[in-house]
Amino acid sequence: MQPNGIITLLTDFGSRDAYVGIVKGVMLGICPAARLVDLTHEVPAQAVRLGALLLRSAVGYFPDGTIHLAVVDPGVGSARDPIVVTTPRACLVGPDNGVLAPAAAALGTPIVHRLTNETLRRLPVSHTFHGRDIFAPAAAHLAAGTPPDAFGPRLSALQPLALPEPRVEPTAVHGEVIYVDHFGNLVTNIGTDALGAFRPQSLSVRIAGTMISALVSSYAAAAPGAPLALIGSWGTLELAVRDGNAATALRAGIATPVTVTGE
Amino acid sequence: MQPNGIITLLTDFGSRDAYVGIVKGVMLGICPAARLVDLTHEVPAQAVRLGALLLRSAVGYFPDGTIHLAVVDPGVGSARDPIVVTTPRACLVGPDNGVLAPAAAALGTPIVHRLTNETLRRLPVSHTFHGRDIFAPAAAHLAAGTPPDAFGPRLSALQPLALPEPRVEPTAVHGEVIYVDHFGNLVTNIGTDALGAFRPQSLSVRIAGTMISALVSSYAAAAPGAPLALIGSWGTLELAVRDGNAATALRAGIATPVTVTGE
Amino acid sequence: MQPNGIITLLTDFGSRDAYVGIVKGVMLGICPAARLVDLTHEVPAQAVRLGALLLRSAVGYFPDGTIHLAVVDPGVGSARDPIVVTTPRACLVGPDNGVLAPAAAALGTPIVHRLTNETLRRLPVSHTFHGRDIFAPAAAHLAAGTPPDAFGPRLSALQPLALPEPRVEPTAVHGEVIYVDHFGNLVTNIGTDALGAFRPQSLSVRIAGTMISALVSSYAAAAPGAPLALIGSWGTLELAVRDGNAATALRAGIATPVTVTGE
Repeated sequence: MQPNGIITLLTDFGSRDAYVGIVKGVMLGICPAARLVDLTHEVPAQAVRLGALLLRSAVGYFPDGTIHLAVVDPGVGSARDPIVVTTPRACLVGPDNGVLAPAAAALGTPIVHRLTNETLRRLPVSHTFHGRDIFAPAAAHLAAGTPPDAFGPRLSALQPLALPEPRVEPTAVHGEVIYVDHFGNLVTNIGTDALGAFRPQSLSVRIAGTMISALVSSYAAAAPGAPLALIGSWGTLELAVRDGNAATALRAGIATPVTVTGE
Repeated sequence: MQPNGIITLLTDFGSRDAYVGIVKGVMLGICPAARLVDLTHEVPAQAVRLGALLLRSAVGYFPDGTIHLAVVDPGVGSARDPIVVTTPRACLVGPDNGVLAPAAAALGTPIVHRLTNETLRRLPVSHTFHGRDIFAPAAAHLAAGTPPDAFGPRLSALQPLALPEPRVEPTAVHGEVIYVDHFGNLVTNIGTDALGAFRPQSLSVRIAGTMISALVSSYAAAAPGAPLALIGSWGTLELAVRDGNAATALRAGIATPVTVTGE
Repeated sequence: MQPNGIITLLTDFGSRDAYVGIVKGVMLGICPAARLVDLTHEVPAQAVRLGALLLRSAVGYFPDGTIHLAVVDPGVGSARDPIVVTTPRACLVGPDNGVLAPAAAALGTPIVHRLTNETLRRLPVSHTFHGRDIFAPAAAHLAAGTPPDAFGPRLSALQPLALPEPRVEPTAVHGEVIYVDHFGNLVTNIGTDALGAFRPQSLSVRIAGTMISALVSSYAAAAPGAPLALIGSWGTLELAVRDGNAATALRAGIATPVTVTGE
């Protein structure tokens, strides 16, 4: 993978403190030409799974050669490995706690290296801020052209992340809400493949006591205030309310069950 | 207009999700040299008028040749047109729902084109995320030098946006609060032109039962905790509280009437 | 000091308005090649001391030649001076109200100039937004190579900022919490130098009625939910709760006293 100079950042650091700025300062000191793009820093504190889902949702939209830095790291200072994951299209840098796994799988066959080479770290390495001392230097060195195998020994695999999978039956698919976005839209884990067996006109969706019949193609296809179901920008079934907040209106959130029935 | 490589972003996407990052990834894939500058992503969801006012407040401070991308788009997927507006100083990209209109008027004579050219979109175009699939590609192609008339047919005019105008009488001007900023300062729609007929020393301002006599020149000119009136950084009458929050202290907000009397 | 093109921004402007974007537009008009890095814009409104602490915590991580712009300015429009502070490693730009002082001291011997040269300002200068009209132009001109002494006369010293200092006794150190970060970690003003006289194994920390015995090296060294004390990423004593929020759990915040006892 030939780096293109872009480094994205996804963390649970929030935007109140200077931690994100510090990480950027460290990276620009190593790779002055790096282009830094924030994905988000508002991952809820230590919410590895949400961070993993957000990272997976974004990596496919960046040009080949991008470095993605993801730090949601409740185990900082413990035994979990710091790693770089190399795929044909991009590199991922972060802790080996699952946060990188879904994005890595989406990007193609991953090769994993531990980040152990001390000359590619910021020294002395703290026990509390590996984002600054290990991960940011690694991302910057990668963007500057250091090959992944310079960082340390190869690992056979990433730590996997358990994600809820939909259960497909002949006339129904049982899934759940996996993400609630800023607009209150409810993103589910039910992909178009799981729905492909049904006639589109026969579909109906049940969530938290509300029944939505038929999928529409856009938010604007429903009446204002009405709940609707569509294939959203995540590529999966999404429940929304036209000009409203579905999470509030439908009293639903992450892990709320969603059932699609059809013929 | 010769692009300078800068693209600004104004949306109601918030900063929790990865949507803004995705839009940036798409743009950097098309125009790797683009300079991306966030105006804000905290426009309240689908608040077209607030987005329009914020955009207008900012465009004049960017160098000539800047591309401004504005996505506050409750009608995504409906019949409203995606457009590019070209002015002598800048291009504006977004939905033709009014969000671009005040900024376009501030920047000079606008020329409007629909964004219909499929080769300048991200395909397939979703029905829910035109920011990613239509607007971001257009902004990036413009920044990379594609001329506006390559995007589609010319439209005769922008959809206008109705903004509240002050009512000027011989001894009074009746306006209203149009924006409340982060500090709680109350920005009104009463410009210096409307106040020009009065002697500055004769002015007094009434808002929500509070009377403020005379305009001052800076926040520091009032006593701590005291309400004050001045011409603010938006170039219009602004009500503030020294070292305090005027919206809270005066119990005022957007659409609160403001009356200036004078001689 | 040879500028490297990086300008960092620290303000209390928040992210809802377009003020930060406007400041960036002004800077890019003057120095198109500037690299703009946000430290934070969420300093509480007019909280000069918190802004000063955040700035000091970050400047050391940027490469030499960085310009740091800090605008927390309750006195905008009053008599406080706008200044540039030049140190061997970096320049600092902002109001002379203390917000720059701790960072300046951390960076080395500071040389101070007033920003009075009108040709290096945005004219006309408003009375309410010196960030846009004085400080941003100064930072951009510095990044573009204008020497600090071109801006105005030299001042003999910065306005100091009073920061709480720990009190060191033979068997105890009395300090306090000076910052609470996004995770709820409690950063104190007790540095490693003040603790150096004690045997590490003999240390115990008292805060808000809770006693924590011994320092650990990382968050992961405590049991989930347990309070812990360590030397944090700020380089001082920090109180945290493993996988939790120490500010909430310990009912502590800024100015809460912290006592370390030892032998």
